[in-house]
Amino acid sequence: VISRRSFLAASALPLAATPPRLDAARLRNRIEDLSVFGRPRGGTFADGVSRIGYSDTDITARRFVMNLMREAGAAPRIDAAGNIFCRRDGAENSLPAVLFGSHIDSVPDGGNFDGDLGSLASVEILRLMQEHGLRTRRPLEAVVWACEEATFRGNSLNGSRAAAGRLRPGEIEEVWAGLRKADAIRRIGGDPERIAEARISPGRYHTYVELHIEQGGTLARDGVPIGVVDGIVSIDRHDVVIRGMANHAGTTPMADRQDALIAASRLTLAVREVVTAEPGSQVGTVGHLAVTPNAANVIPGLVNLTIELRDLSSDKLDRIAARIRARAEAIAGETRTSIQMTAGLRNPSALADAGVQKVIESAAHSLGLRARRLPSGAGHDAQMMATVAPMGMIFVPSVAGISHSPKEFTAWEDCAHGADVLFQTVVALAA
Amino acid sequence: VISRRSFLAASALPLAATPPRLDAARLRNRIEDLSVFGRPRGGTFADGVSRIGYSDTDITARRFVMNLMREAGAAPRIDAAGNIFCRRDGAENSLPAVLFGSHIDSVPDGGNFDGDLGSLASVEILRLMQEHGLRTRRPLEAVVWACEEATFRGNSLNGSRAAAGRLRPGEIEEVWAGLRKADAIRRIGGDPERIAEARISPGRYHTYVELHIEQGGTLARDGVPIGVVDGIVSIDRHDVVIRGMANHAGTTPMADRQDALIAASRLTLAVREVVTAEPGSQVGTVGHLAVTPNAANVIPGLVNLTIELRDLSSDKLDRIAARIRARAEAIAGETRTSIQMTAGLRNPSALADAGVQKVIESAAHSLGLRARRLPSGAGHDAQMMATVAPMGMIFVPSVAGISHSPKEFTAWEDCAHGADVLFQTVVALAA
Repeated sequence: VISRRSFLAASALPLAATPPRLDAARLRNRIEDLSVFGRPRGGTFADGVSRIGYSDTDITARRFVMNLMREAGAAPRIDAAGNIFCRRDGAENSLPAVLFGSHIDSVPDGGNFDGDLGSLASVEILRLMQEHGLRTRRPLEAVVWACEEATFRGNSLNGSRAAAGRLRPGEIEEVWAGLRKADAIRRIGGDPERIAEARISPGRYHTYVELHIEQGGTLARDGVPIGVVDGIVSIDRHDVVIRGMANHAGTTPMADRQDALIAASRLTLAVREVVTAEPGSQVGTVGHLAVTPNAANVIPGLVNLTIELRDLSSDKLDRIAARIRARAEAIAGETRTSIQMTAGLRNPSALADAGVQKVIESAAHSLGLRARRLPSGAGHDAQMMATVAPMGMIFVPSVAGISHSPKEFTAWEDCAHGADVLFQTVVALAA
Repeated sequence: VISRRSFLAASALPLAATPPRLDAARLRNRIEDLSVFGRPRGGTFADGVSRIGYSDTDITARRFVMNLMREAGAAPRIDAAGNIFCRRDGAENSLPAVLFGSHIDSVPDGGNFDGDLGSLASVEILRLMQEHGLRTRRPLEAVVWACEEATFRGNSLNGSRAAAGRLRPGEIEEVWAGLRKADAIRRIGGDPERIAEARISPGRYHTYVELHIEQGGTLARDGVPIGVVDGIVSIDRHDVVIRGMANHAGTTPMADRQDALIAASRLTLAVREVVTAEPGSQVGTVGHLAVTPNAANVIPGLVNLTIELRDLSSDKLDRIAARIRARAEAIAGETRTSIQMTAGLRNPSALADAGVQKVIESAAHSLGLRARRLPSGAGHDAQMMATVAPMGMIFVPSVAGISHSPKEFTAWEDCAHGADVLFQTVVALAA
């Protein structure tokens, strides 16, 4: 164990050759411990997790993580949006802190690494600092963002959007699965009446760093252990309502039907066709689709679906949406249905800070780890933080590029490498 | 009002020129009264009904109808399957009774005529007999069948299938929406342990007659007030499970996806193509489709859907199913998904009894009403009764052929005509 003094010296760039390492076994244990909150009944770690933001499961898991924070000697603080912060003082506490963290909520039937790795690694960093009696110049602050995944009308990044002051007017009055968003925020210890106080003004934090699994398959395929994110794509959501005519599936001749699901099927295929019609890495997905009345013996009268489009270029997304809209119009005419397509949430693209990227790369190299720059196809709380602080993200490989699935997996060695790079990065930034 | 004696004489064919008529206003009132059980909150009659079989709403509605039976002087009896019978003695009670009735459960977001009309008209017939002090030679029995529409795994005709001894082995152990079918039957006053006692042996009833809305649009289009059903089509259900790979909608390149909803969309369109590829009145529908995990930002990993095929010819249905199966295989290969298609319930086609058809026609003509023979594209409890008794069905026009929808409507005059024809028919059959 290096001395407090030498560590403080080493924490300025370049990093010392033998910095302290996170306890890889303990990090793994933490990830396994957290996985029980939202695990399918009778399942194992490999069966993934459903830890929906604001749910009872989420609340219990948050409590577990707050206890870990206390064990790390850092009292948790819940802001008005329900985000959990915990701070370790630095040598100069008047300086803006280095913020780092992620989220612990999941999609339905999700995996145990998306969000969990970055959140638990961040808390482990505070614990390591505490155990070694280490102190940086700037304060360090770990954060667990509330409800990163989509819930209310497909809105995601709920906690970090509040922190970035990007909630839409009236958004906290929205109702999802019978729950008002304001009440959801209150459930997790937030204070919706004072939601504006969750806002982080530019300059309050020195930098923001997030460790996350890639979720795509490029790092794993090429055997690169560390990804340095250069930007996060724009995500556009379009809510589609298709209205046909519910009718009896036995007595309505095929020629007389106004089948909303026939129209929806054609539109779903059209989204894929339009998105793949031009070169580039843009993606388009119909991930949510609901049929009404959804009975085997009734012709579907109504379909609600969501189209999600992602690319670094907003112009390209606008062009693709316009083409899909034209196809929808044609499909509506041919199927005698009406198709209404409404532009929903747009999460604008966000660039990582060039300086933070360099610090991450240096940290990786000092640990003998190859690093590669790449864009993030997934949205992250980091894109909201990019609006109020210089932002950087560290990616680790996702086996086979699988995520948002119980099969999501990152080798434990890669988890440890990512946590080490995060540790060295925040220490360097806080120097 | 004609005398008891002359009515008895008149009830032999041909019918008297001026038989008693049902009280059309009262029948309408009954239909409107029943419509409140399962009406959407804050809605009106025009907003239709969701009266799912075995639900609390169904139970309350059944109680309402049993009270009507008591008012008609006929004590209701619930059999082991939950079907409600009520009997009016005839002059010769050792003779098999004439049975008539329908159902009062609905599809989700259904209308107020499908089942309700035949059920309430049947009870009104007993009430009219009571009010006029009329008695037929054979006993008359009205019935309200339990859960005609599909619930458990798409099984329909639940009460009448039990009566016809056509429940599948182990069927009452199935679970639907968290409810075991045996428990569902118990909820509505049935006795699942003695379900076999619900079985009606051939010869127990003289005949079975059911009044129902056409649900198709042919009678309304041609202005024919009475349909005489000559047969009920076969209904085949196929349960389809499509397995792809749930994955992140942002980080998974289009080329790497195994999107179960893309496969489901292609299959849904293929069903329509195959069904319409040959001449005839066969129909095919994907009415139920469920996506898992069904989140906007997750590529669908699993889709469950139901294919329903109907035609009088089972051979044709087998041929069409084979073609769809071949298309499904090709789609699975092209989309890198697996598609499993399992033949579910087959409700075999059923022919109406020639003698009963003639009695219905005579009844219509004696009332000055045009009648036309036609097949039923919809399944009915009558098809189960056809296996244990000579069966006949009376159809009345559905405006624009709409049913299984809140927009389902039959002109009140047509409702009254149908009820009059049912009345004259059962009286003639009971003579």
